[in-house]
Amino acid sequence: MAKIAVLGHGVVGSGVLEVINTHHDSIERRAKEEITVKRILDLREFPNLPYADIFTKDFSLIINDPEIAIVVEVMGGITPAYDYVKACLENGKSVVTSNKELVAAKGAELISLAQKNNLNFLFEASVGGGIPIIRPISQCLAANEVGEIAGILNGTTNFILTKMIRENMDFAVALKLAQDLGYAERNPAADVEGHDACRKICILASLAFGTHVYPDSVYTEGITKITLEDVQYAAAWGGVIKLIGSVKMQDDGKIGIMVAPRFISRESQLANVDDVFNGIMVRGDATGDVVFYGKGAGKLPTASAVVADVIDCVKHFKARKYLYWDDAKLDYVANIEEESFEYYVRIKALSTDLAEKLAYKYFGKIRELTRENQPEGEIAFVTNLTNEKVMNNSIEGLKNDGASVLGVIRLSDY
Amino acid sequence: MAKIAVLGHGVVGSGVLEVINTHHDSIERRAKEEITVKRILDLREFPNLPYADIFTKDFSLIINDPEIAIVVEVMGGITPAYDYVKACLENGKSVVTSNKELVAAKGAELISLAQKNNLNFLFEASVGGGIPIIRPISQCLAANEVGEIAGILNGTTNFILTKMIRENMDFAVALKLAQDLGYAERNPAADVEGHDACRKICILASLAFGTHVYPDSVYTEGITKITLEDVQYAAAWGGVIKLIGSVKMQDDGKIGIMVAPRFISRESQLANVDDVFNGIMVRGDATGDVVFYGKGAGKLPTASAVVADVIDCVKHFKARKYLYWDDAKLDYVANIEEESFEYYVRIKALSTDLAEKLAYKYFGKIRELTRENQPEGEIAFVTNLTNEKVMNNSIEGLKNDGASVLGVIRLSDY
Repeated sequence: MAKIAVLGHGVVGSGVLEVINTHHDSIERRAKEEITVKRILDLREFPNLPYADIFTKDFSLIINDPEIAIVVEVMGGITPAYDYVKACLENGKSVVTSNKELVAAKGAELISLAQKNNLNFLFEASVGGGIPIIRPISQCLAANEVGEIAGILNGTTNFILTKMIRENMDFAVALKLAQDLGYAERNPAADVEGHDACRKICILASLAFGTHVYPDSVYTEGITKITLEDVQYAAAWGGVIKLIGSVKMQDDGKIGIMVAPRFISRESQLANVDDVFNGIMVRGDATGDVVFYGKGAGKLPTASAVVADVIDCVKHFKARKYLYWDDAKLDYVANIEEESFEYYVRIKALSTDLAEKLAYKYFGKIRELTRENQPEGEIAFVTNLTNEKVMNNSIEGLKNDGASVLGVIRLSDY
Repeated sequence: MAKIAVLGHGVVGSGVLEVINTHHDSIERRAKEEITVKRILDLREFPNLPYADIFTKDFSLIINDPEIAIVVEVMGGITPAYDYVKACLENGKSVVTSNKELVAAKGAELISLAQKNNLNFLFEASVGGGIPIIRPISQCLAANEVGEIAGILNGTTNFILTKMIRENMDFAVALKLAQDLGYAERNPAADVEGHDACRKICILASLAFGTHVYPDSVYTEGITKITLEDVQYAAAWGGVIKLIGSVKMQDDGKIGIMVAPRFISRESQLANVDDVFNGIMVRGDATGDVVFYGKGAGKLPTASAVVADVIDCVKHFKARKYLYWDDAKLDYVANIEEESFEYYVRIKALSTDLAEKLAYKYFGKIRELTRENQPEGEIAFVTNLTNEKVMNNSIEGLKNDGASVLGVIRLSDY
């Protein structure tokens, strides 16, 4: 019998208990061993739960229990999760986590510690919830050179954008709805400012290219500035706006990595990833584009990914898994100002004629887009491939020439 | 150093050599060991290849070579692949195969033999080409009860249907184009009659539900009867026609499994899987719907999946993998006549009025569909949920009443 402990009894933690209880027999069949939860660490009391007797507030009861070989960390955040996980790995216990913040901040260190002590540190649930993505990238695509990963990694923002696109709902209204439905936190910054997606693309980039990428080194832009007008122009262009986390290996050995809203062609597999779903595209040199789609969050999808990792730990108890990457290195993340994109730009001037003249002044030949009820003075267009720094200068120039810059969104080629 | 042999130097076999050669260093890094091909078995001569000296026509040079621990079987077909694979597993050699015909026909026996001898028998490349699907189903979804799998499993028929849908190309013309492009064989029966898709859904069903399903027990219908009129009516209904392999666990413990063209709603993730791409939906009780998308065939995607399995063998040399299922059992596959579907039906009678009366006689309330240039006497409609046997009787009745039945296609709910 494999005995485990669960740190945290929030949404995911209670889901882990639910999955282990409801799938008890099939899990035992697959793990070839019974898996039981011996302890749950939580500062709160849950006197009415049938398993109320296994709760503790004392981490030492877990770390000092030689029967507990696997610890599930689903508390979230860095403190105290990091200290607990480190203590586990230093005391002979494998760790399974769903904590993307922890993996993005401390992944290289914790993986290395696990390897040193011949233990597992698994985190399938940290990206894509119930979608298998960590293992397929590390294992099934082992015979590929992955060149690029791009994904819709945050369900909350995708829900909001879907409401804006499909129901013409204003950003603020869609955010409120997401909060009412429990998809968004009271403080939605981590989602709508792109930080959650940033942690996830950092984990995927670290895994795919073997070098840790810290979130604070990644250009991150959220969706708070997206308007319904932008959504309409995206439709006129032939696509939709999605919040994309992307990373690409460049010829110079640096990675281009960012989180930002992007215009996505209607033909793209990512264009049809709607509501709270996630979709992740992995571009390999041999496989071509492979896309993984499913619920990227939620109690049971995330919990099932955690429990699958636990089963994997039970089956490969002593084996080091081949999830590995080195710590971050200098000058590895390309400066976004050196990258180039095609851009969608929306500006307003005193007259449409003037706006078009200004657009020509800064961008030369452009492709104009139109929308219903487009007011006099407003134009929107798509640029040719333009360097980011040049783009920023052009925006300044437009402003100095008296135009309002109402929207700037990068295009994508997937 | 891990030395392997490759049986067959066709499209996939030469791809395996290409992947191993071009990714030599990264494979060594991932496998933590160099992987070299020591022997290639093929009856043909390849005197101009740089590795011409490792070819042999003599299987005994492989089976009797103690240095060769892993054998890659990419010959296709049952004979002699089955004898060779069996001999390998009986003589201490793990086997990696891309041969869906072999796995569908002999999977249970070969898996069992591999387990008995503590060897690996891996076949990720047999379904979905470069898309990771076997391992995610068996491993990442271990903490789910999978209830249903449905997929576009054959790239050739999907290419043909895409041409019919997008370019209004006739079936025969699209098939000819597929042949000219090398997507379809001179004898296209295995693809267009659904046999290839059938083998793949059998493998997925065996894996997901733990009991072998033989292709000859599965109702299989190809796409040869699909017309451009059907495609137009599908669009009017709000979707597209796709060849779907599907399996569902029923409440009575039997599985409903079939390969057939289906109406797929435009909202479905499978509706946007076009050209030679595959898409596979796995419905789990905890994860919800997870969809895997990518190139389902082709030299390098398939070869990269084979090589990933080889790397896995090298890393888990003695470990039995947890791909396992039991042999087939009686009364496990539900009789399709006991299943029920909604159907699209297209009929022609002497007048539209008569056709509508006949439709009402056999199906009661129906939902009619219309198309451009719809001739007098032709109607198309969607039925309510109807038992398959009742449906067959109704078709007979329609014919006896003088109507021509021009098209019958089942709807889907994914």
